[in-house]
Amino acid sequence: MFEYLTAGESHGPRLTAVIKNLPAGLRVEVEKINDELYRRQQGYGRGNRMKIESDKIIINSGLRHKETLGTPLSMTIENKDWQNWLEAMAPDKERGAEVEALTNPRPGHADLPGALKYNHRDLRNVLERASARETAARTAVGAVARQFLEEFGVNVYSHVVQIGNLKSENWTDLKAKNPESFNEQEAINNYFEKLDQTPLRCGDSTKTEAMKNLIDSWRANGDSVGGVFEIVVTGLPVGLGSHVHWDLKLESKLAAQLMGIQAIKGVEIGSGFKGAGLPGSKAHDEIYYDLNKGFYRSSNQAGGIEGGMTNGEELIIRLAMKPIPTLAKALHSADIISKKERTAAKERSDVCAVPAASIVGEAVTAIVLAQSTADKFGGDSIKEIKRNYNSYLEQLKKF
Amino acid sequence: MFEYLTAGESHGPRLTAVIKNLPAGLRVEVEKINDELYRRQQGYGRGNRMKIESDKIIINSGLRHKETLGTPLSMTIENKDWQNWLEAMAPDKERGAEVEALTNPRPGHADLPGALKYNHRDLRNVLERASARETAARTAVGAVARQFLEEFGVNVYSHVVQIGNLKSENWTDLKAKNPESFNEQEAINNYFEKLDQTPLRCGDSTKTEAMKNLIDSWRANGDSVGGVFEIVVTGLPVGLGSHVHWDLKLESKLAAQLMGIQAIKGVEIGSGFKGAGLPGSKAHDEIYYDLNKGFYRSSNQAGGIEGGMTNGEELIIRLAMKPIPTLAKALHSADIISKKERTAAKERSDVCAVPAASIVGEAVTAIVLAQSTADKFGGDSIKEIKRNYNSYLEQLKKF
Amino acid sequence: MFEYLTAGESHGPRLTAVIKNLPAGLRVEVEKINDELYRRQQGYGRGNRMKIESDKIIINSGLRHKETLGTPLSMTIENKDWQNWLEAMAPDKERGAEVEALTNPRPGHADLPGALKYNHRDLRNVLERASARETAARTAVGAVARQFLEEFGVNVYSHVVQIGNLKSENWTDLKAKNPESFNEQEAINNYFEKLDQTPLRCGDSTKTEAMKNLIDSWRANGDSVGGVFEIVVTGLPVGLGSHVHWDLKLESKLAAQLMGIQAIKGVEIGSGFKGAGLPGSKAHDEIYYDLNKGFYRSSNQAGGIEGGMTNGEELIIRLAMKPIPTLAKALHSADIISKKERTAAKERSDVCAVPAASIVGEAVTAIVLAQSTADKFGGDSIKEIKRNYNSYLEQLKKF
Amino acid sequence: MFEYLTAGESHGPRLTAVIKNLPAGLRVEVEKINDELYRRQQGYGRGNRMKIESDKIIINSGLRHKETLGTPLSMTIENKDWQNWLEAMAPDKERGAEVEALTNPRPGHADLPGALKYNHRDLRNVLERASARETAARTAVGAVARQFLEEFGVNVYSHVVQIGNLKSENWTDLKAKNPESFNEQEAINNYFEKLDQTPLRCGDSTKTEAMKNLIDSWRANGDSVGGVFEIVVTGLPVGLGSHVHWDLKLESKLAAQLMGIQAIKGVEIGSGFKGAGLPGSKAHDEIYYDLNKGFYRSSNQAGGIEGGMTNGEELIIRLAMKPIPTLAKALHSADIISKKERTAAKERSDVCAVPAASIVGEAVTAIVLAQSTADKFGGDSIKEIKRNYNSYLEQLKKF
Repeated sequence: MFEYLTAGESHGPRLTAVIKNLPAGLRVEVEKINDELYRRQQGYGRGNRMKIESDKIIINSGLRHKETLGTPLSMTIENKDWQNWLEAMAPDKERGAEVEALTNPRPGHADLPGALKYNHRDLRNVLERASARETAARTAVGAVARQFLEEFGVNVYSHVVQIGNLKSENWTDLKAKNPESFNEQEAINNYFEKLDQTPLRCGDSTKTEAMKNLIDSWRANGDSVGGVFEIVVTGLPVGLGSHVHWDLKLESKLAAQLMGIQAIKGVEIGSGFKGAGLPGSKAHDEIYYDLNKGFYRSSNQAGGIEGGMTNGEELIIRLAMKPIPTLAKALHSADIISKKERTAAKERSDVCAVPAASIVGEAVTAIVLAQSTADKFGGDSIKEIKRNYNSYLEQLKKF
Repeated sequence: MFEYLTAGESHGPRLTAVIKNLPAGLRVEVEKINDELYRRQQGYGRGNRMKIESDKIIINSGLRHKETLGTPLSMTIENKDWQNWLEAMAPDKERGAEVEALTNPRPGHADLPGALKYNHRDLRNVLERASARETAARTAVGAVARQFLEEFGVNVYSHVVQIGNLKSENWTDLKAKNPESFNEQEAINNYFEKLDQTPLRCGDSTKTEAMKNLIDSWRANGDSVGGVFEIVVTGLPVGLGSHVHWDLKLESKLAAQLMGIQAIKGVEIGSGFKGAGLPGSKAHDEIYYDLNKGFYRSSNQAGGIEGGMTNGEELIIRLAMKPIPTLAKALHSADIISKKERTAAKERSDVCAVPAASIVGEAVTAIVLAQSTADKFGGDSIKEIKRNYNSYLEQLKKF
Repeated sequence: MFEYLTAGESHGPRLTAVIKNLPAGLRVEVEKINDELYRRQQGYGRGNRMKIESDKIIINSGLRHKETLGTPLSMTIENKDWQNWLEAMAPDKERGAEVEALTNPRPGHADLPGALKYNHRDLRNVLERASARETAARTAVGAVARQFLEEFGVNVYSHVVQIGNLKSENWTDLKAKNPESFNEQEAINNYFEKLDQTPLRCGDSTKTEAMKNLIDSWRANGDSVGGVFEIVVTGLPVGLGSHVHWDLKLESKLAAQLMGIQAIKGVEIGSGFKGAGLPGSKAHDEIYYDLNKGFYRSSNQAGGIEGGMTNGEELIIRLAMKPIPTLAKALHSADIISKKERTAAKERSDVCAVPAASIVGEAVTAIVLAQSTADKFGGDSIKEIKRNYNSYLEQLKKF
Repeated sequence: MFEYLTAGESHGPRLTAVIKNLPAGLRVEVEKINDELYRRQQGYGRGNRMKIESDKIIINSGLRHKETLGTPLSMTIENKDWQNWLEAMAPDKERGAEVEALTNPRPGHADLPGALKYNHRDLRNVLERASARETAARTAVGAVARQFLEEFGVNVYSHVVQIGNLKSENWTDLKAKNPESFNEQEAINNYFEKLDQTPLRCGDSTKTEAMKNLIDSWRANGDSVGGVFEIVVTGLPVGLGSHVHWDLKLESKLAAQLMGIQAIKGVEIGSGFKGAGLPGSKAHDEIYYDLNKGFYRSSNQAGGIEGGMTNGEELIIRLAMKPIPTLAKALHSADIISKKERTAAKERSDVCAVPAASIVGEAVTAIVLAQSTADKFGGDSIKEIKRNYNSYLEQLKKF
């Protein structure tokens, strides 16, 4: 379940997302999908295009009277900018003489390897799909996954923990500082929900100003800005994923889909790279048992995954996003036709898209978790899946 | 091509690895597979089991007169230790009263989530498969992939760059320090080949002693040791992987399989997390053209991947390995039957397996690259693949 | 390559088809796709809906200036009938009181098992997707596959060989009767192309009148009509598919996708069921060699596949289509809510759709062959695939 | 679940079968697997090899104390004949001068297309894997699937309904003749179980003698014999498979795996090709409701599948097997090296393997149904799957 495809060029007519199979009878609010599309378009450091596009989903199939049919859910997002590209991106017209080829590839982008691999003489043939515009489609898919996960009390959050070289506290440190503040789900909700009102989705308001300044100053310099964001998921049951074969491990599935987000160059789970430096006695999460809670842990270095499976603790993932490769102060490049020195192309672009990427990260995480939930619990209707899910919780209780 | 499965419990009769489809006519030396199995068993910090097992491959099918038939290649590795587990791990006998159940799960291992998920009352039913013993099978698969890649001049290397909290230089820094030392492939070969003679596969011999001491001292403390290793691949053509859909991106495929190695909690490509903090102007690799070399770069922050594709530069990946979760000074746990407090089980184990994991990392990287090479170039015999490969190189030259 | 998804309900807003990955640089004429959609809508025995819908494709992505980009090709077909179902099939509105549930399932359709499986109380939730309307999307995908195959000189044909219980000659018998008539590709082209001008796509014009009469008479009786059609493919190279694992066999792939066409209940290759009754000496195709032709056969009982691979002869497949399960003279049924006896629902429908199914059969066969061609020859641009293909033909010649 | 690979050459050391993931806690009797291997080796018309091989399974992993661990189940079958092929089929030795290449391909076998595709100069490199010896491995996998299905009361049967051109009654006709004889599951069991004691697994004992005579007479003529067998499955719930996408349809999955059995050239479900000639009013199964039975049918033309899903009736499939292509009276062929006329090779072979193929057909059907059951019901332990299954039956009852 929840297999999906996305399609669509950045300046083509529209994006498409199809989820091949969903449980029947799941309530899906289009408004909630649009909300996620809106969230993806926010954040300090975005370019002008975000003013043009205000993404709305169109449902082509799979939904009837706000409930899934169990059939493929097809969704479309119109590219409003398409009106400006009718000739340059026309699918079904011969190429006009006036359509200029883009031939100066941007370092760090798909431009050059894509042109060489696919034998393209116009870099636009590559960059249109490599562009992060595609993540709007994945965000829509994730917004459906999220509504599925809500049925099981699973919440997928994110916050930005680094902009450029400015870091703020990650979730584990934040909780350690105020152990009681986040005991209740509501407090967690509150913390993360407030972030959408902030310019950078960073929880430490004392850092936000400096981060904005960094973006401004690097932008002034013709430069772009990367960073790190963290995904936090609450409400997961023990036992999603598996240890029995590498490709069934939850961290494999997560790493694959999250590394598949444009510009992501690193992923770590729990204490990750830092944890690699700890002695074993401090790197693992001791096991306790309580009649009410069942088995639980006193720490969460594992980030919620042991042996390829969720262990019932919060899932914690951090992702490194490189600075956007389209720079106002263009880098050195070489023309793919003449082979002569040139500066790289300057496609209109954001300066910093870390907050946006964090929303995409939530979406992608939600997709993986929805897939894993559906895999574990089977069933064809949401009622059946929930019934199976609840009877598994019963089993855990009686274990 | 190169789809594969592994099977086998740590103390069961034997491990199995099957590669479903390989090109025909590929020369495969069993001795080279055994060499990789040997490399995996070395390294300072290993436990006693490595003295028992001296892994050798048995070929069951797919190879005839040292050449692949194009048919599934099935390989077996006998578990020598199996003789000590004939009753406890017997596949086809009723469980004897003398077989004791293991009921005190180890934090950081699959034990507890695995038992809960699969409804097991004996943790051995989980840990036998979750154990890193499985990686011997993947190493064998990787050793075949490596022999395939040799046909294309692709070399897969690794070195250890951190043991516990002691770091040594990574490949990029090492090369920056001695820009001329590594101009020739031979020098690169030499650097990496020598590592197999060292106790920790760390290239900085001045650090090795301290690292050994750290292992000794943490071991004395009943503790275990993690670290970081780096994979370096030379000789890759432009254009493995793709930007057109997330699951076709090379970094997705690499991250999935590498995160699927036991105890890996983080993966980064190129400058990874550090690169996320750089301004865009310093985070990307400027493009140059030279009549002999074609397009090339003056740096390699991208670690050889742009837009989901190899860009012709070296592939560089770093992996964070958590300390082994089986500790002599056992951690706090709770019995899965009585639910009472207990210390965690102490399965015989290594103290540090980072050097071993680096060999597994090479193997897994080789598998992904062999798969990607076969995907890009098609063909059913090694001759056909090489012909297609060479004609693509011709195309690149004439681009 | 050529992985695809279809989506869309019969009376929903529109159908979607996405092909995930195609070679770059392939010329795709939208008009040719529309031609195939038109062909699918013809044939004696169709219902009124065919008058409403005149399917045209809209390209959403993947194509630029009539050439593929190598990126996902997304296509939409509007359901013109949707205007009559705005309330009943609204994706994003609450169900109105006026929307009546369909509760009397049709024997032979997905209605009842689908409702039980997905826990639906309105059979429309099932039948909308189970309807053969979906095959318009697959026909569009097939029309792209066909344009790819044209680059390799592969032609995919079909004709109807049985309507109800009236049979006409199959391809093998037809050729045996006039051995010289079909020596030239042009003659084969002519034979099949003329069929599109006939009411039933049956090559034997002396049978057509009787077939039409049978349809009329069964229709008059409130009945529906099935039949058999045959797919014939010319121009295939030796070696598509493989013998090394069952799921790589070409007949497995063909059978899977062809059996996946609505109402198909049987598939046979070459002499099929009849061949099972022959002695071995008459059931196989003797091998000859000729300097110009290379290896060839004196007969084609195998239907072009031996050991899971094309053998260079024509591919011949026959498919049995059951009569359409929606009958004017409705069958006995039971209400899914009241459980009381009722007659089955009478959704507007065709009486005979065998000619239409034969077009879908061509499309699906083209898809499988395009996938198999892309698998065998690798490559990312049409030029690269053709180069690899030609060098393989060279190899065969020099074998 | 139940993904699997097989490996192994006919005269190589051994066959391997690996099932990647099974539910934990499933009782698997090795003896029952061996029983199926034995059944596969019986039947009138087999060659001498069946006297050499008496297949027994060796469990390498996945099973402990007769219960599955949820981990990959690896199985080996030794080729006893391997002792006679130590040099000719040696995996890890250079080819000796004494090993002769086989160069005269057999019409109807993989020999010629396989050699051309994989660029082999020794046909043995192809035929060893194309041989039906491989089906022993699939039979072992099927025997595990069968033990899984037993937990759900599903029985997979087969009988032979045609040998050469001699036909006997199929299951539907047989039941129609004696409507009361097969009302009870026990009677069905009895009918099919007795077949294993007969030489041809044909239920009509009056035909058996003539069938044996046909085999004898065709064998005397240097010929081989094909036929048709039928698979019958009882005890299936409504709702395996799906109508929502072609590749989820149960008939697609069945056709793919069954067409993947060596020598199968046709597959039909229910009334299949015959049903295509019936008027709609006689081709579908009217729906009735009974308080005890729920929804049921008065006939079974659909063969238990409607709209891609089981409908609760018996599953009925017929498969056409071509005569074995290895003939004593060898057919015309051409040498692959000299290109000169030759007669085809005469590998030792059976004359008729239809009864054996019917056992393989059962195995493969069991695999598909086990996969579909696991897909629908989720779960990681057999207890969990059964719990989910039972709660679905409850849902159906209350529908």
